[in-house]
Amino acid sequence: MQWKLNLYNQIHAMKNLFLLLTSFVIFSFASRAVETTSPDGNILLTVDLDENGTPIYSVTYKGKPVISESKLGLVGKNVDFFKGFEIVGVDTTSFDEIWEPVWGEYSTIRDNHKELAVTLKKNNPELDMILRFRVFDDGLGFRYELPLQDNVNYMTVMDELTEFNLPGDNTTFWIPGDYDTDEFLYSETLISEIPDEVVSRRGKHSESQAITDKYVIQTPMIMKTPDSLYVNIHEAALIGYPAMSLEVVPDSLLFRSHLTPDKLGVKAYIQLPFSTPWRTLLISDDARDILASQLILNLNEPSVIEDTSWIKPMKFMGVWWEMFTGGKTWAYSDDYRAKPGITDYTKLEPNGHHPANTANVKKYIDFAADHNIDAVLVEGWNEGWEDWRSYDKNRQFLFDKAYPDFDVDELRDYATAKGIQLIMHHETAANAADYELQLDRAFQFMKDNGYNAVKTGYVGAIIPRSEHHTSQWMVDHVKNVAERAAEYQILIDSHEAPRPTGLIRTYPNWLAQESARGGEFESMGGNPPSHTALLPFTRLKGGPMDYTPGLFETRLSTYGQGNNSQAGTTIARQLALYLTMPSPIQMACDLPENYQRFLDAFRFIEDVPVEWADSRYLEAEPARYITVARKDKNSDDWYVGAITDDNPRVATIDLSFLPEGQQFIATIYEDGKDASWKDNPQSYNIRTVKVNNKKVLKQKLASGGGAAIRLTPAP
Amino acid sequence: MQWKLNLYNQIHAMKNLFLLLTSFVIFSFASRAVETTSPDGNILLTVDLDENGTPIYSVTYKGKPVISESKLGLVGKNVDFFKGFEIVGVDTTSFDEIWEPVWGEYSTIRDNHKELAVTLKKNNPELDMILRFRVFDDGLGFRYELPLQDNVNYMTVMDELTEFNLPGDNTTFWIPGDYDTDEFLYSETLISEIPDEVVSRRGKHSESQAITDKYVIQTPMIMKTPDSLYVNIHEAALIGYPAMSLEVVPDSLLFRSHLTPDKLGVKAYIQLPFSTPWRTLLISDDARDILASQLILNLNEPSVIEDTSWIKPMKFMGVWWEMFTGGKTWAYSDDYRAKPGITDYTKLEPNGHHPANTANVKKYIDFAADHNIDAVLVEGWNEGWEDWRSYDKNRQFLFDKAYPDFDVDELRDYATAKGIQLIMHHETAANAADYELQLDRAFQFMKDNGYNAVKTGYVGAIIPRSEHHTSQWMVDHVKNVAERAAEYQILIDSHEAPRPTGLIRTYPNWLAQESARGGEFESMGGNPPSHTALLPFTRLKGGPMDYTPGLFETRLSTYGQGNNSQAGTTIARQLALYLTMPSPIQMACDLPENYQRFLDAFRFIEDVPVEWADSRYLEAEPARYITVARKDKNSDDWYVGAITDDNPRVATIDLSFLPEGQQFIATIYEDGKDASWKDNPQSYNIRTVKVNNKKVLKQKLASGGGAAIRLTPAP
Repeated sequence: MQWKLNLYNQIHAMKNLFLLLTSFVIFSFASRAVETTSPDGNILLTVDLDENGTPIYSVTYKGKPVISESKLGLVGKNVDFFKGFEIVGVDTTSFDEIWEPVWGEYSTIRDNHKELAVTLKKNNPELDMILRFRVFDDGLGFRYELPLQDNVNYMTVMDELTEFNLPGDNTTFWIPGDYDTDEFLYSETLISEIPDEVVSRRGKHSESQAITDKYVIQTPMIMKTPDSLYVNIHEAALIGYPAMSLEVVPDSLLFRSHLTPDKLGVKAYIQLPFSTPWRTLLISDDARDILASQLILNLNEPSVIEDTSWIKPMKFMGVWWEMFTGGKTWAYSDDYRAKPGITDYTKLEPNGHHPANTANVKKYIDFAADHNIDAVLVEGWNEGWEDWRSYDKNRQFLFDKAYPDFDVDELRDYATAKGIQLIMHHETAANAADYELQLDRAFQFMKDNGYNAVKTGYVGAIIPRSEHHTSQWMVDHVKNVAERAAEYQILIDSHEAPRPTGLIRTYPNWLAQESARGGEFESMGGNPPSHTALLPFTRLKGGPMDYTPGLFETRLSTYGQGNNSQAGTTIARQLALYLTMPSPIQMACDLPENYQRFLDAFRFIEDVPVEWADSRYLEAEPARYITVARKDKNSDDWYVGAITDDNPRVATIDLSFLPEGQQFIATIYEDGKDASWKDNPQSYNIRTVKVNNKKVLKQKLASGGGAAIRLTPAP
Repeated sequence: MQWKLNLYNQIHAMKNLFLLLTSFVIFSFASRAVETTSPDGNILLTVDLDENGTPIYSVTYKGKPVISESKLGLVGKNVDFFKGFEIVGVDTTSFDEIWEPVWGEYSTIRDNHKELAVTLKKNNPELDMILRFRVFDDGLGFRYELPLQDNVNYMTVMDELTEFNLPGDNTTFWIPGDYDTDEFLYSETLISEIPDEVVSRRGKHSESQAITDKYVIQTPMIMKTPDSLYVNIHEAALIGYPAMSLEVVPDSLLFRSHLTPDKLGVKAYIQLPFSTPWRTLLISDDARDILASQLILNLNEPSVIEDTSWIKPMKFMGVWWEMFTGGKTWAYSDDYRAKPGITDYTKLEPNGHHPANTANVKKYIDFAADHNIDAVLVEGWNEGWEDWRSYDKNRQFLFDKAYPDFDVDELRDYATAKGIQLIMHHETAANAADYELQLDRAFQFMKDNGYNAVKTGYVGAIIPRSEHHTSQWMVDHVKNVAERAAEYQILIDSHEAPRPTGLIRTYPNWLAQESARGGEFESMGGNPPSHTALLPFTRLKGGPMDYTPGLFETRLSTYGQGNNSQAGTTIARQLALYLTMPSPIQMACDLPENYQRFLDAFRFIEDVPVEWADSRYLEAEPARYITVARKDKNSDDWYVGAITDDNPRVATIDLSFLPEGQQFIATIYEDGKDASWKDNPQSYNIRTVKVNNKKVLKQKLASGGGAAIRLTPAP
């Protein structure tokens, strides 16, 4: 029936012919710069055309240059939206609105911006594009909009030519470009040093698709300019388009957008009308403003879920860390030839070190129920882990086939009786296509068995084999999963998915993502203390991370399995992470037996909320330190978390955010006098002091340490 | 979480090391030919190893060579199953069984064969393979079996090296290789002429992926040897593997298997244990045996559907041919920018020539109900046809969004009241990935609205974009669809799917496929009469075709739309096709108003069954003529169909198959005296004669003509 396309094409060609004969009246503004500012006037945005009719923009902050003249444009397969433009319309509007997120760092968020929409037109053939800018006090976003028009219906996007031309050689915190993973430590270099450093990091990626022909880094990234401005570049509302990275143009201080291609080299297949994601710049001379910024959420669409009453933030434990401490496996048996849905697993010999078994899960349920933890995740519950490299054999997991030692019914009843939710694990082995085929029945299986949340995973090379983790198809896929999950009232915590861009506003059931080097790496070389002092400036601007804090036994050598990895943290710092790495779904990642050893410290994890009425960033410097205070959404309590990098530090905690005239009991979980992440990570002290809003605490933090404080109104 | 793969790999490497140290005792037969024959002794199969330890086979029929010494083997990415083998085991067994298909040409099918299983082993590393041959009286099949073994778990198949070495320069009927379509007319050439003819046909494919660097033809193909043997090469039970084509090695009479690759160049991703599809040879010195052969069904697995009582063969009409006769469209409006699920179609201006509207569908329902037709197909019922090239814009159809003028509820009720089934159309625009995502809800929508059968379509380039219509992923996809449909008790008629290989036995709800140049091409240049005299020898050996017979108005010029195409057929021949192109789902493809003009001829379509108790091929020669008699499965009636090519012919219809002593009324639908497909296609005559099993009818067939006979026991 191939002919049908030809038949259609004939009709279509006739139509285009007709349209080309139609004339259009163009109101030309000729070329002259248009400007707008942020509501407070600090940010000045200028948009113009260069001599080739290519749109250009520049940005200043309090008169200091942030972005020098930089080009904008899109290139399609047979058409370009890059040059030959005239400006035919300029609209400037103001917007000021308060909205309420379902959960998050604030109970209300203000969206106050000025919008500048620049309508561009070119001829031969006539093409229309709108550049839409929104300028906030803490930065700006802009996107390309291709409206319905006569000469383009669908377009194969070959490139996006967005430039970020930096006026100075900024200090930059970045991870290398990779189409398939972002689980890296950060480099801290000048822009001019990025190319050499990118090259030196090549070959150190594992199982990933490092980009080897360009100098590419990922967003979100943050820079500090020579005159001490902080600038974060990222994107918002990534839907129907590939993820954007930044390509450093050698011997320049210029970044150009670098979209993840599919394996055929195409960036995106779009149909008009179409809007790209927003390209975002967070800008301030105060690093705390970067952390406090809700700009990326503001650029996302409101929730598409009308009734959000079923969306409940939670803390959870998991049958998971056992597999990192050595000797335990996701797999039930050692028969690596077992095939889900085909092999009779009851006939396999159990390997004896499979913790996702009914008795062990009950142990976690018991501990969670006793210690104010809402849920228990179980990894390795379903058939297929014996050898799960999906890519090489075309299919791996089924999502309704439990291992013989995991009793779905019994655990459902046991968890329900104890008031504990179970979180299901859907490791797709990166066979996203197969996951879509199974999706409805996988979610139905969850609902039938009392599961309301799922941790998804995409480890390995993606199927469809034309795709990368961050190509357009996968961006669509994770949105499809979030949407479909919402229909079943299922919460999502996605791992190895495209890096987040604030879509949690639109899909508030998509609680968190991994999408960075998380706590699991403490068992594989460790994360230096600076890592968690940087992530809130970068990765977390896209949305919450399932970082998995709460590690109390930081030396893997204690397990006697030959792993000498050590976590870059003290116990007190782990508690502080619940404040500095906010998420509506927070793990207590360690083993129950480790928590039993430090129950007084675990008390903080029991108490700490996962959604907030308000947040105050008190101190901040990327990769150095963060001090934050947050008010519980459901009580009058406040909490404070402070962390530092390798260097010991005294955090200054000005309690003036507390309500006037009210005494508070501060329970302080702090590093012991002799604590340090390296030599004495388990030394901590818990003390109680009475404070009020006049008090300024001077809180000592050890090397790699931190402090966590609960502030409760005094009776 | 990329690390997990590494972790696993370490464990896996250790395991392999252990296994390599284990020694195996090998019982070697050394190299000596092993043989077996067909049950009747006519076919002799010889299997041996050549000097490189490569398996070879050869075949004779009644002492005449059919396949000269030909190599066998598979090549994986890091391993080969091609050379260095020893034969370590030979098993010969006999099998004779009668089984009952759910529907088909016969109510029972005999599976009588001798099986030869040759176990091969090689060292460094040790690898095991079984070659399994099944030799029937009418041909043979063989496949590669890779059992569970220690040194290979999964394998990336890079090539299959099956050879078909022909001892003579056979006359060959073939269509050119193409990974995405098989909708071609056949070439009739010597093997030696294939390369030049393949080249001359290049560039004439439209919208397809012609293979340009090799001389490739598709299966099923049929050859006639210089000493008048008929040999059909195809495959059976194509599951989990790409479709096989045949590559002609230039300057030889050698075909080599050519598997459809994915766009990364890989043929298949498999996990052991694994068996390839069967490579099949149908062999006889009587062309009628090729038509009667059930060998390919016998090599497929029995039905996986236990309760098949809901599977009912059917005849149907369709809102479909109107779109071919000119001026009518699948699309509801001419707004080619409309987007399903986004555009409000009720606000679009209807184009006024959209036949999938409620009133028109009722007209078809009325006609069907009045004339013993079971069902009505409606194409163009759902949103999205305005511009439906999915590949270029990443998504097109939704399968639960009807156009505003198609009232799902009203038509369900109307059809039900009239006792007519509605057949849904799922055109995926080749976005198979998206179809899988929608599959459960699409089928649920069907069941909710009374649809029990679906015509699927895959027009265009496949998404996932790494795939072709016949690559492994798509082979899996159509199986997934058939399986999922069975769960919903839905019948499938698939168009643009991989060519059939007898899977109808395993999935009897998969009634038919297109997978060849069908009746629709009568509106696009026409099909020469030889085409339908050849398809039963080739395409139909894989399974029934939804050819869409029943065309009464054969000259498209009558519609005054500038289309001067003419069908290569008379009306009488169209009736005969219901016998010569057997299918459990047969269309009456023409417009009700055309049938109104020839209601006496249409009576045959009303009467003819779609499932049979028995079939007798009376005369046959590929691309020349076919005469077949079939007994109705549900009555004592017999039916006869006879067709010829361009040449007028007298069919000899020996009625000795009729039961002894019973008189029959033969109603003969024959070409008029002056009929010919070209000049007088609508001239026909209907006459009645009394006959018995002693009678031999001499039935005249016009150029491009045919005859259709109903034989009813005389009262």
